[in-house]
Amino acid sequence: MKILIFGGDGFCGWATALHLSALGHDIVIVDNLSRRAIDVELGVQSLTPIADVDTRLKAWKEVSGKDIRFVQMDVVEQYQDLLGLITEERPDAAVHFAEQRAAPYSMKSPVHKRYTVNNNLNATHNILCAIVESRVDVHLIHLGTMGVYGYGAFGMKIPEGYLNVQVLGDNGEVHEQEILYPVSPGSIYHLTKTQDQLFFWFYAKNDKVRITDLHQGIVWGTQTEQTKLDEKLINRFDYDGDYGTVLNRFLVQAAIDYPLTVHGTGGQTRAFIHIQDTVRCIQLAIENPPASGDKVQILNQMTETHRIRDLADMVSKLTGASVDYLPNPRNESDENDLHVANDRFLSLGLEPTTLNEGLLSEITEIASKYADRCDINRIKCESYWNEERELQNTRSLTNSP
Amino acid sequence: MKILIFGGDGFCGWATALHLSALGHDIVIVDNLSRRAIDVELGVQSLTPIADVDTRLKAWKEVSGKDIRFVQMDVVEQYQDLLGLITEERPDAAVHFAEQRAAPYSMKSPVHKRYTVNNNLNATHNILCAIVESRVDVHLIHLGTMGVYGYGAFGMKIPEGYLNVQVLGDNGEVHEQEILYPVSPGSIYHLTKTQDQLFFWFYAKNDKVRITDLHQGIVWGTQTEQTKLDEKLINRFDYDGDYGTVLNRFLVQAAIDYPLTVHGTGGQTRAFIHIQDTVRCIQLAIENPPASGDKVQILNQMTETHRIRDLADMVSKLTGASVDYLPNPRNESDENDLHVANDRFLSLGLEPTTLNEGLLSEITEIASKYADRCDINRIKCESYWNEERELQNTRSLTNSP
Repeated sequence: MKILIFGGDGFCGWATALHLSALGHDIVIVDNLSRRAIDVELGVQSLTPIADVDTRLKAWKEVSGKDIRFVQMDVVEQYQDLLGLITEERPDAAVHFAEQRAAPYSMKSPVHKRYTVNNNLNATHNILCAIVESRVDVHLIHLGTMGVYGYGAFGMKIPEGYLNVQVLGDNGEVHEQEILYPVSPGSIYHLTKTQDQLFFWFYAKNDKVRITDLHQGIVWGTQTEQTKLDEKLINRFDYDGDYGTVLNRFLVQAAIDYPLTVHGTGGQTRAFIHIQDTVRCIQLAIENPPASGDKVQILNQMTETHRIRDLADMVSKLTGASVDYLPNPRNESDENDLHVANDRFLSLGLEPTTLNEGLLSEITEIASKYADRCDINRIKCESYWNEERELQNTRSLTNSP
Repeated sequence: MKILIFGGDGFCGWATALHLSALGHDIVIVDNLSRRAIDVELGVQSLTPIADVDTRLKAWKEVSGKDIRFVQMDVVEQYQDLLGLITEERPDAAVHFAEQRAAPYSMKSPVHKRYTVNNNLNATHNILCAIVESRVDVHLIHLGTMGVYGYGAFGMKIPEGYLNVQVLGDNGEVHEQEILYPVSPGSIYHLTKTQDQLFFWFYAKNDKVRITDLHQGIVWGTQTEQTKLDEKLINRFDYDGDYGTVLNRFLVQAAIDYPLTVHGTGGQTRAFIHIQDTVRCIQLAIENPPASGDKVQILNQMTETHRIRDLADMVSKLTGASVDYLPNPRNESDENDLHVANDRFLSLGLEPTTLNEGLLSEITEIASKYADRCDINRIKCESYWNEERELQNTRSLTNSP
């Protein structure tokens, strides 16, 4: 198949591009390199030394014999180029990672809120609009987030995208209906993904675009079978307060003998998936498209759930690191349960990599190996969800030694 | 109160500005004049001869003795100016009409789809973001649409914004929950209003912004008590295929002795409200704000429902016009029922103007009076929802004499 990867230079995008290329697909990466520009803006860099795009693609050609093409393009600003690309390439599928994907970055300031809204919504809409205008029957695979569901509102297992509800009619009769699971976004970033869902709903209905939306958990792990093949293919590892996930923060903190910082009580439960499973899920989604005219196909792309404090304990046991509890910069519940249905990917053949198996190699092969590249001042999250949270956090700073 | 009216030069905005000014409020109109620019783009003009903003405001000063200020500003492009305005003026309330509001215009071409998405979503988000950044406690009143609900999905009376549902838990137990009414947008325009709802949900929750969202029906009528006071204050009357509502189309067609054109079977049921009731509802919303920390207050702003073919009959009886049935350019159901709760505005004291009372004066005082300004070629809707609808419509043109 010919497949466009929007955002194919990013953390998930790069690993996906290599995985699909290794399978024999014809891959075109489309990226404006915004993620690298944000590194510059924040004064940080990936813990792992990532190569520039040209070097990456040459290295891939050397180890695999395969060509991946790269088109530098901003899908928000360059609609006509985007349309021309789809019309010319006539891809079978397109994977859409071209969104700002960090919740703390999206809450950092009005500039960052507005950038995330403008970038994410126009990127998604331009891609949909261009697919319809091109009249090419492209299967669009989008990376959503588990965060669209909120965390635990219904006290039940979270289904895959749709929820059956009963409503009492005017005469007491019961109406059954399948609806999009009611959303509860916790940040501007998550909000844009709930709004993306409505774009998809409309374009699937009005224009019969074939769409798969993957509600992904927090991705952990750095390397896949392909990115391991050459040092020049190494994937990103973010550990900074904006882009670093909680697990990456713990791993880096352990590697530099710093206490693991848990926000709030650490009772927040979140869903996780290994990057190797991410790329496999995207392959499975591409191989199992919906039909034209179908509703949006929604799958939960996660393999296990953990409480944050249990994660800290896991890392602590493997490394001997101590654990510190700090105020939470996020406006969220301190404690929540989370049960998630992921039957569809399992039934398609996904064999999960668990944290229990994979965590140790992540410590030795990534966090410890590149610990000398860590800037300790960049680990703390300095993005506050609202005024109240900012006050709590600054007070705590003043009180701490 | 001091009140900003975003989009205060448009059809609803202008009438609202005058109504609130007449009540003694201090009004600032903020508008980029995009609606007048779109008239130029489409090569049409309001059937009624509307004056430019300066002339309007001078005439209002003459008849009422009151000042309304005007700030020409694009809230999408001029965020810093918007923030400065809110910080300086410290308004008690802001009414947000600053969105592209025609469904056919939003479906006209990829350019129009993308303009509607970019303009409407960034306008709403910029206003919310600026309110939070300014730290001014502004009550934001937004004009939504009945179209966010879709038309008749649940076979029950449409509640005001929120729906109580029951969900079966994992062990067969029943969970009750109040959710935002599941949306079913029928055009890109309606889609943006469903996405606006999620902005409001988030900002009410995360930043405790006080927000009222008014899901309005199709507005009919042209004049209010204030716009009637001087010919220079006259309100817009759109009759073109993009901005003209179905009722305005019928009125103009009757006035120029042209058959009334019904799309499809005319079995579509829609909600209506007179412009005089619109401005009164907005007054009531301003006088009854939610508290800080409350969920978004949602009210249905409509007073009656009618089937399109019944509307045509009504106009036909009053004028003697004949009725023609044409293919529908919209991708929508041919027939639907619609029952809508509007208890909240009625309980706050709204006394509806019905079509039965008001339609005749609309014919004599507006449609017939200004019929010589009508360009008959602009009445037809040439905006097709998708390829299928375009084919149906062009075939029918070829077959007709």
